Amino acid sequence: MGAIVALLADDPLGAAREDPGDTQTYDTAYERVESDPGQHLVVADRDGTVVGTLQLSIIPGMSRRGATRSVIEGVRVARDERGSGLGTELVTWAVDESRRLGATLVQLTSDATRTDARRFYERLGFVASHVGLKLALDD
Amino acid sequence: MGAIVALLADDPLGAAREDPGDTQTYDTAYERVESDPGQHLVVADRDGTVVGTLQLSIIPGMSRRGATRSVIEGVRVARDERGSGLGTELVTWAVDESRRLGATLVQLTSDATRTDARRFYERLGFVASHVGLKLALDD
Repeated sequence: MGAIVALLADDPLGAAREDPGDTQTYDTAYERVESDPGQHLVVADRDGTVVGTLQLSIIPGMSRRGATRSVIEGVRVARDERGSGLGTELVTWAVDESRRLGATLVQLTSDATRTDARRFYERLGFVASHVGLKLALDD
Repeated sequence: MGAIVALLADDPLGAAREDPGDTQTYDTAYERVESDPGQHLVVADRDGTVVGTLQLSIIPGMSRRGATRSVIEGVRVARDERGSGLGTELVTWAVDESRRLGATLVQLTSDATRTDARRFYERLGFVASHVGLKLALDD
């Protein structure tokens, strides 16, 4: 679990958003994720070291002829693994797993400042057809 | 259930994507949504008529200090109710309900061609900080 948090924090945007020392908060979140059958939190392991992570969520729905969607979130690759193709492997796994779980649409949002990330997903076939809007709620 | 499908289809993009006659497909989807405790499919009712709908999904996660997010999807308002403020009421309800269910972030994607929708969400405080990418899977 700590390895996932470390990956989330080792990121230009994550550095400001995460607080790896607050293990209790992440422990609670981890339990919530693990107890929800619609959530699939995965890691990539190389020789016993966690080198990548992402979360896949399965969302049944009514629109698009009752399409089940999947949402990919929190994709992170360890610093010294970037450029190795591991990101492609992780996302390709998530797409295959989405199909296996009955989804007909995979979606994700990427921060508009991450221009490399957008190109990465477009190379994998994703279409940047939408605007991603977010509203932060006060704690 | 039929009223929800009718609203989904009565939309510039939905018209091509939905097939209201295929009730079996929507029935199956409805059962999937209703049996998933993370999904909240709601309708707005005026004098016994369904005049609006949206789906709210609750997604626990690890990133952003273990934030639980909500995702709003499939927001539709009946043709003769548009401009009445019902959309604002529906989305405001979804935001309040997200907060009540422990979410600290509400997110949605809006088709880039729906410029009015983007402005509508921005007026409600949403920030268009992300690009929404989608990958349709072959059936």
